Amino acid sequence: MDHLLHGGDYNPDQWLNYPEILTRDIKMMKEANINTVSLGIFAWSALEPTEGNYQFDWLDEAFDRIEAIHGNVILATPSGAKPAWLAKKYPEVLRTNEYDQKLHYGERHNHCFTSPRYREAVQRLDKKLAERYGQRKSLILWHISNELGGECHCDLCQSAFRQWLRTRYQTLDALNNAWYTSFWSHHFDAWDEIHSPSPLGDTTLSGLNADWRRFVTAQTIDFFEGEKTAIRAASPTVPITTNFMADGPDLMPFHGLDYAEFAKHVDIVSWDCYPQWADPAVSDAQLGAKIGMINDYFRGLKQQNFLIMESTPSLVNWHPVNRAKRPGQHFLSSMQLLAHGSDSVLYFQIRQSRGAAEKFHGAVIAQDGSNNNRVFTEVSAVGDALTKLTGLIGVNRPRAKVALLYDQQNQWNLDDTQAYSQQSKQYWQTLQKHYTYFWQHDIPVDILPPDADLSTYLLVIDLMHYSLPIEQKTKLEAYVQDGGTLIGSYLSGLTDETDLAYLGDSPLAKLYGIQRNEIDTLYPQQQNSLRFETRTYPVHDYAEVVRPTTAESIASFEQDFYAGHPALTVNKFGEGHAYYLAGRSTSDFLEAFYPPLLNKLKISGSQVISPLLTVSVQTRDSSEGPVSFIMNFSAAPVDIDLLQAGVDLLTGHQLTAGKQQLAGYGVIILQCVF
Amino acid sequence: MDHLLHGGDYNPDQWLNYPEILTRDIKMMKEANINTVSLGIFAWSALEPTEGNYQFDWLDEAFDRIEAIHGNVILATPSGAKPAWLAKKYPEVLRTNEYDQKLHYGERHNHCFTSPRYREAVQRLDKKLAERYGQRKSLILWHISNELGGECHCDLCQSAFRQWLRTRYQTLDALNNAWYTSFWSHHFDAWDEIHSPSPLGDTTLSGLNADWRRFVTAQTIDFFEGEKTAIRAASPTVPITTNFMADGPDLMPFHGLDYAEFAKHVDIVSWDCYPQWADPAVSDAQLGAKIGMINDYFRGLKQQNFLIMESTPSLVNWHPVNRAKRPGQHFLSSMQLLAHGSDSVLYFQIRQSRGAAEKFHGAVIAQDGSNNNRVFTEVSAVGDALTKLTGLIGVNRPRAKVALLYDQQNQWNLDDTQAYSQQSKQYWQTLQKHYTYFWQHDIPVDILPPDADLSTYLLVIDLMHYSLPIEQKTKLEAYVQDGGTLIGSYLSGLTDETDLAYLGDSPLAKLYGIQRNEIDTLYPQQQNSLRFETRTYPVHDYAEVVRPTTAESIASFEQDFYAGHPALTVNKFGEGHAYYLAGRSTSDFLEAFYPPLLNKLKISGSQVISPLLTVSVQTRDSSEGPVSFIMNFSAAPVDIDLLQAGVDLLTGHQLTAGKQQLAGYGVIILQCVF
Amino acid sequence: MDHLLHGGDYNPDQWLNYPEILTRDIKMMKEANINTVSLGIFAWSALEPTEGNYQFDWLDEAFDRIEAIHGNVILATPSGAKPAWLAKKYPEVLRTNEYDQKLHYGERHNHCFTSPRYREAVQRLDKKLAERYGQRKSLILWHISNELGGECHCDLCQSAFRQWLRTRYQTLDALNNAWYTSFWSHHFDAWDEIHSPSPLGDTTLSGLNADWRRFVTAQTIDFFEGEKTAIRAASPTVPITTNFMADGPDLMPFHGLDYAEFAKHVDIVSWDCYPQWADPAVSDAQLGAKIGMINDYFRGLKQQNFLIMESTPSLVNWHPVNRAKRPGQHFLSSMQLLAHGSDSVLYFQIRQSRGAAEKFHGAVIAQDGSNNNRVFTEVSAVGDALTKLTGLIGVNRPRAKVALLYDQQNQWNLDDTQAYSQQSKQYWQTLQKHYTYFWQHDIPVDILPPDADLSTYLLVIDLMHYSLPIEQKTKLEAYVQDGGTLIGSYLSGLTDETDLAYLGDSPLAKLYGIQRNEIDTLYPQQQNSLRFETRTYPVHDYAEVVRPTTAESIASFEQDFYAGHPALTVNKFGEGHAYYLAGRSTSDFLEAFYPPLLNKLKISGSQVISPLLTVSVQTRDSSEGPVSFIMNFSAAPVDIDLLQAGVDLLTGHQLTAGKQQLAGYGVIILQCVF
Repeated sequence: MDHLLHGGDYNPDQWLNYPEILTRDIKMMKEANINTVSLGIFAWSALEPTEGNYQFDWLDEAFDRIEAIHGNVILATPSGAKPAWLAKKYPEVLRTNEYDQKLHYGERHNHCFTSPRYREAVQRLDKKLAERYGQRKSLILWHISNELGGECHCDLCQSAFRQWLRTRYQTLDALNNAWYTSFWSHHFDAWDEIHSPSPLGDTTLSGLNADWRRFVTAQTIDFFEGEKTAIRAASPTVPITTNFMADGPDLMPFHGLDYAEFAKHVDIVSWDCYPQWADPAVSDAQLGAKIGMINDYFRGLKQQNFLIMESTPSLVNWHPVNRAKRPGQHFLSSMQLLAHGSDSVLYFQIRQSRGAAEKFHGAVIAQDGSNNNRVFTEVSAVGDALTKLTGLIGVNRPRAKVALLYDQQNQWNLDDTQAYSQQSKQYWQTLQKHYTYFWQHDIPVDILPPDADLSTYLLVIDLMHYSLPIEQKTKLEAYVQDGGTLIGSYLSGLTDETDLAYLGDSPLAKLYGIQRNEIDTLYPQQQNSLRFETRTYPVHDYAEVVRPTTAESIASFEQDFYAGHPALTVNKFGEGHAYYLAGRSTSDFLEAFYPPLLNKLKISGSQVISPLLTVSVQTRDSSEGPVSFIMNFSAAPVDIDLLQAGVDLLTGHQLTAGKQQLAGYGVIILQCVF
Repeated sequence: MDHLLHGGDYNPDQWLNYPEILTRDIKMMKEANINTVSLGIFAWSALEPTEGNYQFDWLDEAFDRIEAIHGNVILATPSGAKPAWLAKKYPEVLRTNEYDQKLHYGERHNHCFTSPRYREAVQRLDKKLAERYGQRKSLILWHISNELGGECHCDLCQSAFRQWLRTRYQTLDALNNAWYTSFWSHHFDAWDEIHSPSPLGDTTLSGLNADWRRFVTAQTIDFFEGEKTAIRAASPTVPITTNFMADGPDLMPFHGLDYAEFAKHVDIVSWDCYPQWADPAVSDAQLGAKIGMINDYFRGLKQQNFLIMESTPSLVNWHPVNRAKRPGQHFLSSMQLLAHGSDSVLYFQIRQSRGAAEKFHGAVIAQDGSNNNRVFTEVSAVGDALTKLTGLIGVNRPRAKVALLYDQQNQWNLDDTQAYSQQSKQYWQTLQKHYTYFWQHDIPVDILPPDADLSTYLLVIDLMHYSLPIEQKTKLEAYVQDGGTLIGSYLSGLTDETDLAYLGDSPLAKLYGIQRNEIDTLYPQQQNSLRFETRTYPVHDYAEVVRPTTAESIASFEQDFYAGHPALTVNKFGEGHAYYLAGRSTSDFLEAFYPPLLNKLKISGSQVISPLLTVSVQTRDSSEGPVSFIMNFSAAPVDIDLLQAGVDLLTGHQLTAGKQQLAGYGVIILQCVF
Repeated sequence: MDHLLHGGDYNPDQWLNYPEILTRDIKMMKEANINTVSLGIFAWSALEPTEGNYQFDWLDEAFDRIEAIHGNVILATPSGAKPAWLAKKYPEVLRTNEYDQKLHYGERHNHCFTSPRYREAVQRLDKKLAERYGQRKSLILWHISNELGGECHCDLCQSAFRQWLRTRYQTLDALNNAWYTSFWSHHFDAWDEIHSPSPLGDTTLSGLNADWRRFVTAQTIDFFEGEKTAIRAASPTVPITTNFMADGPDLMPFHGLDYAEFAKHVDIVSWDCYPQWADPAVSDAQLGAKIGMINDYFRGLKQQNFLIMESTPSLVNWHPVNRAKRPGQHFLSSMQLLAHGSDSVLYFQIRQSRGAAEKFHGAVIAQDGSNNNRVFTEVSAVGDALTKLTGLIGVNRPRAKVALLYDQQNQWNLDDTQAYSQQSKQYWQTLQKHYTYFWQHDIPVDILPPDADLSTYLLVIDLMHYSLPIEQKTKLEAYVQDGGTLIGSYLSGLTDETDLAYLGDSPLAKLYGIQRNEIDTLYPQQQNSLRFETRTYPVHDYAEVVRPTTAESIASFEQDFYAGHPALTVNKFGEGHAYYLAGRSTSDFLEAFYPPLLNKLKISGSQVISPLLTVSVQTRDSSEGPVSFIMNFSAAPVDIDLLQAGVDLLTGHQLTAGKQQLAGYGVIILQCVF
């Protein structure tokens, strides 16, 4: 890549009857400083309108047009939505839901991921695509399928699941032990007695649930690998990705798959970023921290830069309320993506559809075809900015000193377990509260999968690790033993990977130097408090009654029958220290807790400006040295105190240290001068 | 008809084992001034207890008894609920739901509307009824089935739907274009690949949804026409109706059918009116406006008087809280029905059932059989009043000068589209806000279907016309061209009848003289404001950023990035004027906006009293000249200022112009003296 | 029994791979003063791992171990959860839900209660258990299945239901009349046209619903009787029970079965008591009254002492928020169970499971295996207390002078009927409000099923008896005729047992000496008021407009059109008096209403202490005379005024009359000295 990518999804196949639009679109792309176009997403019907009848002319032409403006192509395989003829001829390709209902043809992402027929039909077309386009000079990336997700419960999938279980457990005895089937008389004495979780059967056999989710990830990857192999034969060197997703207004990693596993199979991580800008319930700065975190999560999957494969230039059509980004928000949010390690700003979509489900999703070119509106203008400005940042290309964002662990399988098991309070578990949101502290203080954080190498980090935060496989406990111990500093919390170390409770002491008891006697789950309207140094902080949702063995108590609860018991402990373990937060407190507490600890560890913020809560500073390396993104997450201008001189890459202006005004939603990208 | 009808549903077939009750009921009907009885609704089991075994004795006797008191009969066909033997012998008559589940026998309105078996069985019985009763002198109306509604997804219906689509589109190419199936690879290359919308298949293919709803209306009418034909052979002159419905506390037209189409097939419109009286969340006057509007809607379908086929004398049993009308409310509400053009006050039901689902629905004669209670007394008083209003018979309410357009298919498509904010679309409720202005100022309004002739109206209001077929645009242009005044609004002219977005400028751009750049969807807790004349009014939910081309801005937004942009424009178009409301404001704004406009158009209120917000005046013609209903929609007495002298038809009193007290819930029906 | 039972469910079959745990558990049971262990619940897989392959060694050993510490065994039959092999081999044993979906193997309580295969398999194993263990000296009770409930809609069950209907009605005519099938053309002319209630068929045919619920109870009992017979052959004398349940935070009797019928088939009533302690929305005293009432309900079923078969020593895992009992609450709540007539405090569970659905349900021995924690200590203290109360054994709590009638079938029909306001019906909660008055004033109350003998009671309260079979009306009349005092209320005597409305006057009109004209259902935000003696009390939800015939009005409504009409009447009927509450008022009103009435009837409180609202006194007989439980339902200590001297059985201390402090959650068990 020799450009930061700007562009996105484009479906000429929807406009074959409108040749003047196809011509005009290319001109408008140039005008909007677009250099990259994603083709072929959901194009199966256009590519193979009837079985074996391949139609590539329109796609050839699209390549030609894009190459004529020196654009890049990202080419998708069409497996995200099947044509009607395929479903009619081979019903096995249709998904079966958890109620045993075979789905009709319809919507998208509705195929059986096990079906040999489906895989064969997809891969046949993939091969054709690779053979025809694999060598086009404009082709920079393969985009397999689209937002893979969902599950199928058909007989083929049941067999595949059982086979996967046999491989995992070898014997039924091992499976019965892992799932604790002696409860409720659930002993399995034949593999074919096992069925995927279903409201018609088992929903609360937690080991089954845990393994089913793992199987869904494995089978999805297996499907993906099938496509990859089909492409690789004719296109061995072009990198391959598939676009990942985040869920809900908190921007959690998509719940349906374990991306930590999936990321091992893609050449570059890419994802679709749809924060709910302009929602009055969330301040711009709160949203900024959420966006920062999920981007850091995707960067952390491979500890490499990544791509934003989709975002909206304006609004989406599927939120409960679909409000457009306000002026300035699109530019700010695009720059933030780069700041956290993206090498692209790509959109769904370049040209808005005329009909069907997503016709009112924002696009660079709306149905009115106009270039005379706010959205088009702001998109062009982003494209223009990207051309000024080419120094960033090919240089990964450097590793942080602080790592925050996120374990998708822990999320599954904790969400699934019947205990505590369903509404207040909030694993991701709790990590988010800690992340926000670092975001506000401009301290870089890596979000890491559980098997990541921790050795380079000064501080590791591992909260609410309810389901903790023994090898992870061993790893954490080794990290602290060797001098690391670890922060853990309540609700950790309770079960293993199939949600089987540990007997006796928690596996983390030695590391944290405490024994847990009770977990107090508070009602939402209740609170306790803790005393730390000279102040009192509220405690809500969870408080554990722990007894230090080797740990020292450095804060205690103030109320209820465990008043005076430790709320925060620290344990010297080998060469390092392990802190344990026994209760859930507020951001105020983190503001008191972190500074002395970070000070001791010599971890500090960016040193580019004096930190401000609503201004985020993120630093990337470039071929010319460090580049700092200074971003104002509020509509009001703010005065910043620049600590270093440099050049603002966006304007080319020389900036001297000292007071500076940053416009509402304004961004400075500072190439420091040393 | 030589009486205003008073009476309602009556099921002697439920009381065949209670001969003394049948005798007593007739006496009580007389006592309650009842002159009309609807027989045969849900009586199939009684008429044909086993296949081909017809039992008419009980119905003969019912006719005899009613004729003995000189009553009218409305005779229903029994297709609203099938007998158990039919369902058992011919399972095809059972409905299939959208999950492909064949329903069991049960409840009512559960037949397949396509099934030839069902149609044949129904029509065979209809013919027998027509032959036996078609010439009875007491028979004034046929009542086909009951509250037709619902849909079936069985294979017979799938075939019928595909056939309907073939007729509509001729070619699959045309259908694929209309539904924009190039999105998500949905191209259909065979008719049998198409399936009705289903949670198991497609729910978001908007063109499919739009056409399915049209088909449901068409197929329901087709079913109805089958019954009509069966009756007409032996009963060629007696008029035919079927009872329509309204939905929910806002009294919206039933969502499942397009009554504008259906009304073309009935001789007289009739409907079932169940407002939620006595709900403390809605004031009596607010409710009065809602009731007024839905009655005007039903009158507008054929621009003729109509019948209230069902209402309750007291309470229903299926609201969340079932509170009885308070004293006076039943009389007031009955008179209001007449005021808006009903020629009847009919009840469900005359005699309360003993068992099953609706046994506690209000009735003229309750289970206790008593005539010594409030309900019976109030019903009798309504009956008595009707005898004093015979001058109204056969004289249609005159046309209004103001027309408010309501397009059911627009409602469907707008509700269905994934965009804006689902909760705040509120098409009907927005019309209701405008209607309420006119109701409060005693200005008559016609609610018209989209294909109505507009030429006689001084003012046409056409709001939120999201899905606007081109022929309607043409019609609106012609109306304004010829000198009409039109009011349109935000969210208009976005898609055609299959929800396919218009490309380029909106089809309404010329008419309103504006171009739309953006639609701003506000969160419920947000607001903007607009400046009109000397005041500021809040704006919520929707605001459009528009650019006048030929229009003049007469109000502007005050906040956000489009502050200063037009919030209200007027465009001279041909001989007329087109106003465009670019944002959603409050009733206060309408109070400022309408008076000067109406003044210019010389549209004024009733001139019967000085207008009062909670007193509604509606005027009907009679054989003796105009009759004005002056109705107090509040529990408290009010002083009214009578502007004309006349006779109160209810009391026979001469009223002179000047101050007058109107009792709480009081009604004066003034025959003006000139 | 020579001990009050302390212990609970224990599953050695879950720990066969952990011999050291089995050994340690027995020691810990002794330490916790446990004397009773429930074995075999959900143990089918362990007892018969493959068809016909019985494995009793582990159970033999469990008996041996328990007998070695002189413990009692309660032995369960395993029918609560079937093994996987059974479901695979005989699919008919699987339940079919109301949507006709055959369930998969999974969860528990999922068998078809009609299936001959299932009954045969269960009973074969039951016989083996009875033959092997029926004579063990430690065996004190058979525990059939577990928490029986749920229903099946398969073809076998449809046949059984139809057969049950034939037996009940003899003819279809009788059934058609009872169900009023003339409504909506529902006449049945063949038995096989009838199907259980289903969302796919009928849900609102109230007679069908009523009879289906009765059938479910009858078929569940029939299933239970099958197991009983299987056991009785080899174990003729050991008593038999099955554990009953309560629903929701209000602790209502389980809605799915009529325990009044079921109780006739068990030797001793036992139930599982799971109040939501520590929920801040309910005060400890409010909860205390709820717990008191449901225990009195279970005692009333046979008018005998009963067993608590399950309770939690700490918390459950299936509430929305799972908070542990605070210190002292477990002891208090355990003593309260005894006070109301339980002869046991048993837990689910002695040893916490490692995996699956309920692994975090509280237990005596948690996963950590520790005896050094609050729960274990508090459990041991309860066990210790029980050893001091052996005088209670074998002596039933004496009858009360006040009876409160609860009719499960009335609950079903009233909940089911479409009328009034669904949310405010609240039959059980209304009884609870009256019960609470007596609980607060330390006046014992028996909760009785409708067919109980009333002759010994001075006061009978029978509220909201909507569905009142004629024989119950006759019984109530006889009770009052003979001098009894009866309190009835609004919403009584409207329908019979199949929800068929009474015609003419209510069957209760003579007894209460009133005629009902209207039922006014108020919206939640509305209220009326009533005047009683010198004060005004609010009226909400329901107010009836009644006309006294022979009754005297002693309170009247103050507002609305029925202001001045009676709100409370009393009727002299024979030798007795019948009071009628025509509206729903508050607890304040009961505080005014009850004292003079109770005074007249010479019904007074316990006379053990001066009554306090949060201190409950309940008295049981013992072999040494009356024993009074004085229980503080609040966290704060209170001063009580002891009116009698005695010995506190818990401490052995002599207490003299006069002031005494009772600790927060404190309990005194006073053996009075006369």
